[in-house]
Formats: sequence, C-alpha cells, structure tokens
Amino acid sequence: MKALPPGRRTFLKSSAALAGLVVAAPSVDGPFAQAGDVVVSDMNSMENVLYGRRSRFVTTVRFIEGPSHSDVPRPRPNPYRPSARTPLGESMGILTPTSLHFTTQHFYGVPDINPAEHKLMIHGLVERPLVFSVDELKRFQSVSRIHFLECVGNRPSPNGRTVSDTHGRMGCSEWTGVPLSVLLGEVGLKNGAKWLIAEGSDGGKHEKSIPLAKAMDDVMVAYGQNGEPVRPDHGYPLRLIVPGFEGIYNVKWLRRIKVVDQPYLTFQEHSRFLGSNPKTQPDTYDFGPSSVITYPSGSHQLAGRGVYVISGLAWSGGGAVRKVEVSTDGGKTYKEAALTGAVLPKAHTRFQMAWRWDGEEAVLQSRCTDVKGQVQPTEAEYAKYWAFSRQQLYAAIQSQLGHCNWIMPWRVNPNGHVTNGLPPVGAVVDVHGD
Amino acid sequence: MKALPPGRRTFLKSSAALAGLVVAAPSVDGPFAQAGDVVVSDMNSMENVLYGRRSRFVTTVRFIEGPSHSDVPRPRPNPYRPSARTPLGESMGILTPTSLHFTTQHFYGVPDINPAEHKLMIHGLVERPLVFSVDELKRFQSVSRIHFLECVGNRPSPNGRTVSDTHGRMGCSEWTGVPLSVLLGEVGLKNGAKWLIAEGSDGGKHEKSIPLAKAMDDVMVAYGQNGEPVRPDHGYPLRLIVPGFEGIYNVKWLRRIKVVDQPYLTFQEHSRFLGSNPKTQPDTYDFGPSSVITYPSGSHQLAGRGVYVISGLAWSGGGAVRKVEVSTDGGKTYKEAALTGAVLPKAHTRFQMAWRWDGEEAVLQSRCTDVKGQVQPTEAEYAKYWAFSRQQLYAAIQSQLGHCNWIMPWRVNPNGHVTNGLPPVGAVVDVHGD
Repeated sequence: MKALPPGRRTFLKSSAALAGLVVAAPSVDGPFAQAGDVVVSDMNSMENVLYGRRSRFVTTVRFIEGPSHSDVPRPRPNPYRPSARTPLGESMGILTPTSLHFTTQHFYGVPDINPAEHKLMIHGLVERPLVFSVDELKRFQSVSRIHFLECVGNRPSPNGRTVSDTHGRMGCSEWTGVPLSVLLGEVGLKNGAKWLIAEGSDGGKHEKSIPLAKAMDDVMVAYGQNGEPVRPDHGYPLRLIVPGFEGIYNVKWLRRIKVVDQPYLTFQEHSRFLGSNPKTQPDTYDFGPSSVITYPSGSHQLAGRGVYVISGLAWSGGGAVRKVEVSTDGGKTYKEAALTGAVLPKAHTRFQMAWRWDGEEAVLQSRCTDVKGQVQPTEAEYAKYWAFSRQQLYAAIQSQLGHCNWIMPWRVNPNGHVTNGLPPVGAVVDVHGD
Repeated sequence: MKALPPGRRTFLKSSAALAGLVVAAPSVDGPFAQAGDVVVSDMNSMENVLYGRRSRFVTTVRFIEGPSHSDVPRPRPNPYRPSARTPLGESMGILTPTSLHFTTQHFYGVPDINPAEHKLMIHGLVERPLVFSVDELKRFQSVSRIHFLECVGNRPSPNGRTVSDTHGRMGCSEWTGVPLSVLLGEVGLKNGAKWLIAEGSDGGKHEKSIPLAKAMDDVMVAYGQNGEPVRPDHGYPLRLIVPGFEGIYNVKWLRRIKVVDQPYLTFQEHSRFLGSNPKTQPDTYDFGPSSVITYPSGSHQLAGRGVYVISGLAWSGGGAVRKVEVSTDGGKTYKEAALTGAVLPKAHTRFQMAWRWDGEEAVLQSRCTDVKGQVQPTEAEYAKYWAFSRQQLYAAIQSQLGHCNWIMPWRVNPNGHVTNGLPPVGAVVDVHGD
C-alpha cells in the first residue's frame, strides 16, 4: 500500500448544501464511471441480468486430469470427458464455486438426464419397494448441510506441483435433499437389512456398498447444491451424499438403492478400486483429520521478504475441526492458526496465520485436530502405522486404498518460489479414484 | 410415489462371482446410459469441464424490475441495466446462487472494472491516508462469513403476486474480505472520527454514511463471494459488506472511504432515499427479525389435498434466528417449525413444517424470533407502532423508509392456487431502493 504523497493533487469539491450538511469529495485516481458516462459492457447484457456471469478479468478454471486415470479398459473410450480438479490455490472461504468443484466420471461422460423422466427405486430387503420421481422426492421435508466431498485419490505426493495436483479432488458445497433415513422409513426395512448398494445412471452403473447405520445417520438423497439444482457433472438430478465418506460413496445420477444383508464387492469396486496389497484395508469409511495450506502453495511466487498470511483448508470425516496448527519450520514447532470462517461438521474449515518471511528457505505445513481429538499424522507416522517404507507408501497409493491424510509440506525457496516439500521417491504413477 | 406393481418386469442379473460375492441387479425403468453407450451432450464439452454449467433442464432466471424504480431523472438513462430480483419461490437451503442473487444499480449499469487498476482510498480524519490496490488488500488476513443482504425495498405488499415480488430483493452469500477495522487500524483514526462515508465507482458515485462503531464491529471490504471473486453486478472487484444493515450500506465497486465527524446526507441519499413524512425515521440501521414462506407462495399451485412441506427463510439484522413459528390459519395459532440448515448470525435460515391441506381455504404465514428476543410484528402491530392507517402504511413505503418486516400471509384457495394474503389497499406504486 502507498501513503498519499503530500503534494498529490487533491481538491475539495463542495456539493450543494442540504440542510447545512456538506460532503467533501476529494478525487481518487483510478477507473470509475463519471456522472454522465454510459457504461457499455457485456456485464449489462440482458443475458447477464437474467443469470449473472463473472467478470471478464476472472478466468480461473478447473484443472483437467490426464488422459486416463484408470487401468480398466473402456470398450468405447471416446468421447471421453476428462475429470477435473478444483483450483484450490485460488480458493477463499469454505465454499467451492459449483462451476469449479472437482468432478470425476468413469464411464462415457456426463449423462444428459431429463428430470421429468428420472426415477429412484428403493428395493431389496424392504417391506414395500418404491419408485420415486424427482418431484415426489422434493415433497419431503429436506435438510441442507454444508459438507466437503473428497476423492480418495487426493493425497500428498512428492510428484504434485500444485495444491490442486495433490488435493484438488475435493470441494465443499451446501447440499439440499431428503434424509435417506426418511425414505428407508417409507419402504420399511426387513429383518436382516444391514447394508445398501447405491447405483448411478452412468454407462458403467457405478455402484457402492454402504452400511445401513451410516444411511440412517446423515446420508441424504440430494437434489440441491449451493441453492440450485445439482449440476450435471455433480449428479443431476439426484446424488447420494454420504458426509465424510470417500467420494465414491456419493453416487451420482442416483437411480437405485438396494437394501441388502452384507457388503457386496460389485464389479466396479473390484475392478477399479481394490488392490492386491494385503497390508491395505479391504474397505474404508470416513476420512481422518486432514488439512493443507492453499496459499502459499506449489507454484506460488512470493514477491520478497515481508509479512504473508498463510491460508488453508482443514476438514475431517469425524466431525468438525477443533484446531489447526501451522509450522513454518517443517514441523519442528507449531502455532495455532485462526479459524476465519464458519466451523461446521464434515465441512471445509478455513484457517489463516500471519507469517513474516525473512527470505531464507522455509517449509510450511499444517496439522488438523478434529472434535474427536484425532490428529493429522506426519508422513512418517502414517507409514509407520502401516509398516511401510516411503517407497512402499507411495506405491500403495496406486492400489487406491487408504486415506492419505498425512501432512503436506510446501517449501519456500530463497527466490520466493514455492515447491513441493516432500522428498522425491522416484517414479510414482499418479492415478486416482472418485 | 408409487409402489412397484407385483407383476412388474424384474429380473435378476447375476454378475461374475468374485470371492463368493454376487451382486443382484434388477433392471429399473428410466433413462440411463447403458454400458457401451456413448453420451454426447453439451455437458461433456471442454468448456463445461473447465467451468461447469447447469443442466439444460434448469432454466430459472432472475426477475427483472420495472422500467424504472426511481423518480430521480437520469441524464442519460440508456443503456440502462435493470435491477433483478432473486427467484425465491424456487430457493432451497440458505445460500443464493450468485448468478441468481438480486442486483440493483442506480446509474448507467454495471461498471466494467479492471482489478489491476482499481484502488481503494481511505482518508479523512485519519493519521495516514492510504490507497490500497486489490492485491494489497488480499495480503491481509481475511474473514469469510455467510450473511444475508437485503434491499430496504423488500416489503410485504398486497400488490405483490409472488414471493419474488415482495421479498426477492435479498440473497445470502459467503463473503470473504478484510475486516474494515483492520484497515482503519492501518490508517489510524484521529480524534473526532465518528462516521464514515463509503463511495462506489458507479456513474452516480453512490455514497452512504456508516457509523464508526459498526465499521469497527463486523464490516468488511469484500473481494470474494461464494468462493470466487465478487461478480461485477455485486460490486467487482471490491464491495463493502455491512452485515444486517440495509442493502444501500453495502457499497458496490468500492473506491473510497472517508472518515468523518458525523453522518452526512449525501446527494444520493437525499435525492433518492429520503421522504418527507415526519413520522418515519431519519435513518435506519439493522433489519429487525423477519421471515417469509417461499413454498407454497404466490402463484404456486397445489395439486390437491394432502401433505405439503411449508418451507421458508428467516433472518434478522440483530443476529441469529432463535425460532420460527408457522401458522396455517392466518395467525390464530402457530406451531414451531424445524430449522433445516445452518443457523448463522445475520444469515438466511431455512425453516420447514409439514402440513396436511384439507382442501379448504387456508392462510399460511411465518413469524421469526431472533436471539435478542425480538419478534416479527404483524402488519397491524407495525402500523400501530407508527400510528399509521393501513393506507398510510403502504403510502409510507414509497418514501423508502422503515424496515417493512411485518408478517406476510399467503392464501391457499380451494382450487389449490396460492395468492397474496394481504387485503388490497388500492393503488400503491411499487418502488424500491437498494
């Protein structure tokens, strides 16, 4: 910021006195409309009045994933709609703009569904199987909650260049829908009902087994996202929201829920998400406590020594974030950061901490503690728990198992350039799930 | 909803057994992609991958205000960008999609501002006047809060047909920016500093006097809305957010804040917003407790007797909503509604209550109580306080003064059509402020 130079041209413009009150209005340099000016821009088009658009100076977009993120052969891979990651390096607050929210689809792109024809069937171990139209679902009392949604493919990785590379497979939205417990009450559960299989309308019929206890807790059949209908690439017209669980549980284009007796390994789960490493768990549920610094992060450039506000996101599938600590010395010491937005259960939580950079190399990282007292582990703690070497740890990721919630360091180099702070481990193929 | 007829075609499709587990997959009627299908739609365009769009089946737009909402002559009224109201009748949750958030501009449309050239000056009764660039403001620690923003022109009115007509001049967003108290700390306040004047970059230089005590409390200079830069019609690149105060305080395209000794009646405030009725207050601050039913509301059509979930929004400039009560008999009796979303200070709060309609005429209305214990008044209570007749009450609105937060009734007619429940008062010109 600059102080106004004392000699700067300023003048007082006395406007017509009104009841003895006069407002003094010095001039300000900068572009602004003058009285009498006609502002002609795209911003004033009727199209923009009806449904507003962003400024032509704002051009942030999602990051497109590589040509393929799966080794499952697709019989007809084209046209293939790539997955896209959230540009977290420019994020602010706790909400992700729907247009920038990460999206993944495994089969033949995004279905183009007419909501008037779409149905949700609930059947299986139920007293009264039912088929609901979207309008019928909207007649139930709804619930609206702000939740993060994260792909299990998110992970700190030495190979990621930006925070979008490592953690961009997540977003946070207000979801509106019908509690699944209400719908299960309508169909009536039979004895032996213990699990559900949820199925989408995509070409591959994405399916996922979900424990009934979770379904009766906080799962919802969502039709709203951030105040408007769920977008097509997020599951229009219906998406299952399974708060705190891996992204793959949040079945998009939801068309069927079958109540069953046990978890089933569907074709999709087997072929896409299960590896062969016996050390990794056979199935995984809610995400542990996690956090990542979004500014400054990989590829950011600091202008020089001085005060910077470190900013990031924390979240946990276990509930709300209790505290976030930030280290600027690679984890030797931590200070508690401020939580500078709404703190809600299973939602992104914004943290910030001012930091004076002295121009020397520094390693920035954050550590989340959730309301259950769970603490985000370091890479070494995580590897030790699974009895992995570092090489094994990053190889294990490829089997798509485990919640890779260890601490992510960013290195501020003396030239101000920010790079990945994890030491290299050699070639790691960066693949991801949903 | 329909129960599946017993004779409906279903078949079990046994997929290849995997480790002894088999998933049974009955067919479901309805449009969904089949394995091997290629989904070709606009939803799979690269443009949509980069920055997502809504479904072609979702066509909700803002409501455009009448040709003019002011009696102040505009020297060059064309091109004139009309104001637009939020389509509240289709709202869900507590957030308003930015593209559908109401917008008003008084002078020559929306300025097309290059953020690299925009500046904010803070001067007046300060030790050290400063000029900030947008990038400089972003270097401060920010705060993100979800707040409603309401135009003082919002009011229950017998002449409104829909809830967008009566209450559509409001929305609710997550705003991100720098606390104004921080910036005032940078410039240093001189003795005698008691008020501010905030000024925008629009053609008419919209200005508003704001008490310093409010500025030091929760006012922010916002550059973010719902996770991305503030949109042009909401004030890009900088907007003052004055939580709970009238919309006109939330100066868009903010370019100047002058610290002063007392409130000043600027030209705009005088010419546009002050009436001559001595009974109305000379200036107004935060909104009282308010609420309105958004479904069912004016122009909605009920399909027949049966259970409906009444849904609406409550809010208060005094803080969080404590409770909302709903009446289905025109206010004779009330029942407490469920709050079915986040309950945050000075934010929209979603309420819902199930109701069985017996096919007879019914009058639906809601009543908000905030954390201060303030209760939303009826029209009669409001009029009595100001010693107005009904006719005077609705005439007084035209002077743009007062927060018209009285209870809004909707009449469900025996044919299921929903209409305005306020008795007519004759011709009332429906004008509004910001």
